[in-house]
Amino acid sequence: MQIEIVSIGNEVLSGRTLDTNFAFLARALERVSVQVAWHTTVADSSERIAEALARALERADGVVMTGGLGPTPDDLTRKAVAAALGRHLQLDEGVLEHVRARAKRTGRKLPASFESQALLPRGAEVWINRHGTAPGVLLEHEGKPVILLPGIPQEMEALADEYVVPCLQKRSGRSVEAFTLRTAGVYETMLQERIGALPQGWPGATLAYLPSYFGVDLRVTVAGDDPAQVREVTGRAYAELKAIVRPVLYAEGERTMHEAVGEALLAKGWRLATAESCTGGLLAKRITDVPGASRWFERGFVTYSNAAKVELLGVEPAALAADGAVSAAVAEQMARGARERAQVEVAVAVTGIAGPGGGSDEKPVGTVFIAVASPGGAAARRYAFAGTRHVVRERSVQTALDLVRRRVLDLALDPKLE
Amino acid sequence: MQIEIVSIGNEVLSGRTLDTNFAFLARALERVSVQVAWHTTVADSSERIAEALARALERADGVVMTGGLGPTPDDLTRKAVAAALGRHLQLDEGVLEHVRARAKRTGRKLPASFESQALLPRGAEVWINRHGTAPGVLLEHEGKPVILLPGIPQEMEALADEYVVPCLQKRSGRSVEAFTLRTAGVYETMLQERIGALPQGWPGATLAYLPSYFGVDLRVTVAGDDPAQVREVTGRAYAELKAIVRPVLYAEGERTMHEAVGEALLAKGWRLATAESCTGGLLAKRITDVPGASRWFERGFVTYSNAAKVELLGVEPAALAADGAVSAAVAEQMARGARERAQVEVAVAVTGIAGPGGGSDEKPVGTVFIAVASPGGAAARRYAFAGTRHVVRERSVQTALDLVRRRVLDLALDPKLE
Repeated sequence: MQIEIVSIGNEVLSGRTLDTNFAFLARALERVSVQVAWHTTVADSSERIAEALARALERADGVVMTGGLGPTPDDLTRKAVAAALGRHLQLDEGVLEHVRARAKRTGRKLPASFESQALLPRGAEVWINRHGTAPGVLLEHEGKPVILLPGIPQEMEALADEYVVPCLQKRSGRSVEAFTLRTAGVYETMLQERIGALPQGWPGATLAYLPSYFGVDLRVTVAGDDPAQVREVTGRAYAELKAIVRPVLYAEGERTMHEAVGEALLAKGWRLATAESCTGGLLAKRITDVPGASRWFERGFVTYSNAAKVELLGVEPAALAADGAVSAAVAEQMARGARERAQVEVAVAVTGIAGPGGGSDEKPVGTVFIAVASPGGAAARRYAFAGTRHVVRERSVQTALDLVRRRVLDLALDPKLE
Repeated sequence: MQIEIVSIGNEVLSGRTLDTNFAFLARALERVSVQVAWHTTVADSSERIAEALARALERADGVVMTGGLGPTPDDLTRKAVAAALGRHLQLDEGVLEHVRARAKRTGRKLPASFESQALLPRGAEVWINRHGTAPGVLLEHEGKPVILLPGIPQEMEALADEYVVPCLQKRSGRSVEAFTLRTAGVYETMLQERIGALPQGWPGATLAYLPSYFGVDLRVTVAGDDPAQVREVTGRAYAELKAIVRPVLYAEGERTMHEAVGEALLAKGWRLATAESCTGGLLAKRITDVPGASRWFERGFVTYSNAAKVELLGVEPAALAADGAVSAAVAEQMARGARERAQVEVAVAVTGIAGPGGGSDEKPVGTVFIAVASPGGAAARRYAFAGTRHVVRERSVQTALDLVRRRVLDLALDPKLE
């Protein structure tokens, strides 16, 4: 089954708004083995919308259009699609009621134009939008589905997950299951070597290596016509892959490293403090991205100057003089100092050269020392991260979080595949 | 002149890679009044590339294609375009030399397949790629330009700026100038009211209001057939608009708030310290995004717990008990404490409720107090920021940075249009 996605809107076509709706839909459909074969973007213009729809119906087995369903005069999708498919617009009472109920609940006086969102092409199946007023719409045209979705990402995404993906998957007649294992601290090539030809024993499965500066995600998608076989293969693939990557696995699915760290700390009843030099607050920021982080995060020191390292963390001036601020000794003293002064169970410290300047032959840009201190003692590690200032900082933070996670969970500090 | 952009690549069509190339090109062309009227994305497939090109040549006055110019077997653009336009591929000696010289300079042994990048459709004008091996290519087909660009963003962007934009602007026969004024601390509607019908006095000009959580950018683009008139109108628009927005203007063009703050501090020889609660390190992170920030940033305190606020910043337990951690009194004490303990000229403090939990009737989610302390004394302000946890934190940081900038530059703390 080959789908065309049509994005509608001047903001998208001007490049000012990145088309995350398209990327979301394409990824969601790929996960259920529905192929997106074309993507077209057109302006808020009835003529252009109609042209794009006609073209898509010629070549694709189904069409998903996003945008242009709102109440303003430049929202033209409902009208243009109705005309293109030779249907009248008619009032949908259910949608009208939903629009009025939302207006009432938010206490805002919505202009009458909002009710135009209840005017839908005849024969539409309606998917109520729980995050907004414009509903999702499914039309059947000569055996092909034509789906209309609002352009506001939160609304589009919820309707896509709830209706569009299951609807198109069912039509494709394929059964699909998937899982993601997230790893940190090993290169993609090391994973590839160790995993080797294993996926060849999983009929209908594809294994994607997805590297980023958070690590390498392994996504397995199993598709087939027999649901029982798909389930069996998925279960086996999960067990076999997990057995291999367990030493470097930090989370599954969409869970992030900072969430995993928070949960590990909470489970053990430990609190965390951070001491940062080159990451300049990014480490504390990542930890506090999680609501409720005050339950496990006590404080953070951003000791950018040497004076701050000495005064706030008790780093010895002699260590700074002998080894420099970017050294294992200073990292370890920073972690110990943060742990003692914050009176917490575990602390982590980062000091390094994020670039673009400041590197030397001995310590080139990307050299970062990270130390962790806990009741079991303190330990520092040296890393060489490649990339821009931004990437070096992100990689440093991800690695620091993984060290905390490993220490809290009593795992070996250095990730290694067996 | 109406252009179609065609993006080529399975990674883009799968949604795994966001199509920033398209957004970059569309914005760059909009700035010179060249209209992008269609955008199509297709897979790495000769058939699909040829179809997309044919369709684009039917409806557009010019075509820009990105991607598929590399050396691997799934890079099919050169071959597919040559076939579609009925031309042979022929070896370009200049490109071959460039590919070999780059290989030599990087010391890497490039596979022979890299030389296939020198095989170009007959009649190609070549734009050498200074960041990579695959050149940009301009073909003329029945009076319409067909432009091929590599898909690697850094390479695509450099070729777009250097060749594509001037080439298409010249063909459009239009003269264009533009500028951007960046404002913080005022709503879009306030700017609109104050600016009113002013742009009607600027022939050929459009004024775009671009709101984000960094503030509202005002972008003026002036286009016309007479370069002298365009220049005159642009100069006048710049002077008139700047006179209005001066009290809320923090930067021009692409310059960021954290860069503006760094420059202001450096110029005055002042150093900065930060004290953060709800922003959890994001403020320090933004400041240290700028390379060389150690020249003006001394240290940051991420005092997430009340104990940390008392121990590190000298906040009085009585103030915490009486007013709560989210209060003007505590913000002010945090700023004073950070300034004294770090021994710097200026300090800024943020305490608030980023959400989603933790709000009350008196202090709902989004309530944030920000204080600044300097030789002139300390002052706190209360804000009510709308949005998710992420957005509240970003808005808080932007506002905190603006308060620092205003204090360092001796401006009134509260931005106000005259």
